Amino acid sequence: MKEIYLDNNATTRVDDKVLEAMLPFLKDNYANPSSMYDPARTTSCAIEKAREQIADFLGVNDPKTILFTSCGTESANTAIKGVVEKFGNKETKNHIITTRVEHPCVLSVYENLEKKGYKVSYVGVNENGELDIENLISLITPETILVSVMHANNEIGAIYPVYEVASKVKEKNKDIKVFVDGVQAAGKIPIKLQDSEIDFYSISAHKFHAPKGVGALYVKKGTLFEPFMLGGHQENSLRAGTQNTPYIVAMGVAAKLAKDALDYELTEVKRLRDKLEQGILSQLGNAKLNSKASSRVPNTTNIGFEYIEGELILLYLNELGIYASSGSACTSGSLDPSHVLRAQKVPFTSLHGSIRFSLSRFTTEEEIDYAIEKVPEVIKKLAKISPFQKELNELGL
Amino acid sequence: MKEIYLDNNATTRVDDKVLEAMLPFLKDNYANPSSMYDPARTTSCAIEKAREQIADFLGVNDPKTILFTSCGTESANTAIKGVVEKFGNKETKNHIITTRVEHPCVLSVYENLEKKGYKVSYVGVNENGELDIENLISLITPETILVSVMHANNEIGAIYPVYEVASKVKEKNKDIKVFVDGVQAAGKIPIKLQDSEIDFYSISAHKFHAPKGVGALYVKKGTLFEPFMLGGHQENSLRAGTQNTPYIVAMGVAAKLAKDALDYELTEVKRLRDKLEQGILSQLGNAKLNSKASSRVPNTTNIGFEYIEGELILLYLNELGIYASSGSACTSGSLDPSHVLRAQKVPFTSLHGSIRFSLSRFTTEEEIDYAIEKVPEVIKKLAKISPFQKELNELGL
Repeated sequence: MKEIYLDNNATTRVDDKVLEAMLPFLKDNYANPSSMYDPARTTSCAIEKAREQIADFLGVNDPKTILFTSCGTESANTAIKGVVEKFGNKETKNHIITTRVEHPCVLSVYENLEKKGYKVSYVGVNENGELDIENLISLITPETILVSVMHANNEIGAIYPVYEVASKVKEKNKDIKVFVDGVQAAGKIPIKLQDSEIDFYSISAHKFHAPKGVGALYVKKGTLFEPFMLGGHQENSLRAGTQNTPYIVAMGVAAKLAKDALDYELTEVKRLRDKLEQGILSQLGNAKLNSKASSRVPNTTNIGFEYIEGELILLYLNELGIYASSGSACTSGSLDPSHVLRAQKVPFTSLHGSIRFSLSRFTTEEEIDYAIEKVPEVIKKLAKISPFQKELNELGL
Repeated sequence: MKEIYLDNNATTRVDDKVLEAMLPFLKDNYANPSSMYDPARTTSCAIEKAREQIADFLGVNDPKTILFTSCGTESANTAIKGVVEKFGNKETKNHIITTRVEHPCVLSVYENLEKKGYKVSYVGVNENGELDIENLISLITPETILVSVMHANNEIGAIYPVYEVASKVKEKNKDIKVFVDGVQAAGKIPIKLQDSEIDFYSISAHKFHAPKGVGALYVKKGTLFEPFMLGGHQENSLRAGTQNTPYIVAMGVAAKLAKDALDYELTEVKRLRDKLEQGILSQLGNAKLNSKASSRVPNTTNIGFEYIEGELILLYLNELGIYASSGSACTSGSLDPSHVLRAQKVPFTSLHGSIRFSLSRFTTEEEIDYAIEKVPEVIKKLAKISPFQKELNELGL
């Protein structure tokens, strides 16, 4: 059976070159990088090389601004809790601004802080999934300690103007910290943190063809925070725990490869994504584009199929070897409709039938052609068993 | 050049069988285990199989008691902060009891809690590195919320009676939680948590021949805590973050192999360790055993060389391809003498010249013979340039 993986926003295949680079560190080069003997110098040097590669990937000059973590979730926890622990108090410094469309791993931290007495303002998006920056800035109060905006949305692919947000926040009050969840931007669009006002930027390696279980957090030079993972002196005493040398090496190489492939991502991957999107939309009267933001990552499309149940679509696609998703993997299994699509007021008729297709540089034209053929077949088949026959007939199904 | 790795308490070589088991999950089986399609079932099933293997390794019946984390440090942070967040308050429930000889990753968390206003009692050890349980229990107050004792010490190998500690704590007050750092016990001695009173038990995969960057935390059924890593619904909503399938699979297989090798560990590894220990002690008048606890893990010895500088010993051994350590890798680079050896009142004459040798099931007789030949040569060479000629002459050097 064909296997067409169109869920690269959930996770990605490890690039063969990445695996090759990390394997020596799973075999002979196993010394603890904190140890003092010669083999440990091999592993600690490999970590520092990866740090340089990640700095280069994020467009920063100083590799010391990069901390290695165990995942994007840990990076987000580190930044958010680190700011709150360092600068927050429940009386006078208790306000955070974020968006309604952040990833669950970020929203969960804010919900937890709300339970503890912090106030969190959630900025909405318009029907295209775009953010109103002026509205966000207007919410700043003397109590605000943190503004947190994702760089690219995992479900609809919208890119948010995080550099501009950061500048405007600092214009209003330079003490407010700015955290950007860059997990879905890294590897898809260029990133340039040097000379930006962003304080924290999180990435996750498994979103750009390295393994699951390693991430990084950029911390602007001079920005203070309370460490999250306490223990040994690793990572300049800012993140304890024996470093995962193989995966750190993998992430460094994956970052280099992703940076080198950015042109391809922005042209070829985008062309295939657009072909898939148009191929589906043009064949189905009930297909509505949810990914409508004027600025969007090149690999993602989210399409709502009116009057069809999303879980059923995924089930039928799965049987054809086409792997896509509704919402994020972190909330899959839940029957609640996506918080992102609700935030952009996708009508209920297509809210429950919205599917995300996310490509990678390994997606082929043949795979896209197959999906363009099969997705409409599935939708038409499901339309026949839908209780909404009248509505679907009116849409040509 | 020969390479004799005698620092297995810092980290271990990944077993070839472990690497083989995890490789498919670094290659084709890369689906996010939280996704809904068929390939994700392969990865999520692999995780559940590993959970069963870890449960079996720790001697518990219910795999649901096992959470996967990114390392031993994270497991410790999760348990300690999780109890404090759930049950602590700075007025009436603010007291923790631990030992002076815990690992830095555990001590750091307690030092941080002290800064926040919690009270921590540190129980010492006797000159053999043994714990006085009655003293520990006598420190319990109505404010005590947590008792935290390591199962085996990383530096001297002493085994602490954690089951007995847990029983006695619960006898006095069943609401007090008991956390055991089992990082240095796992793979070295049998573990049986079922029917014990221990609430939390942490392990780290890279100490038993799996890669660095994955750990587990056992949480007794019914024991509550506040999750540390917030985000998605993974690990039954108790530990967020996309699961590191390859390393989790690796840890499961490594646990199975370690359990199968326990007899070998307790007989052959112990025999080689004892041979090394006696081989060194019998040749050098200035060599004093620091690992004197009546109960000790089979792979560890710690020997103090009077009037010789430890860093110099390690440097000379390194040049001969013999890799050992002073203190833990997590504090290496620091010139402070080991907190563990200070706690057991090792005299200053050998405190700075104490070296830990830690074996594994891959250590060979030939390697031990080489070490028995070379270590005394190094010590005798260094004795010649020591400023303590008179003292060393009296000891026969």
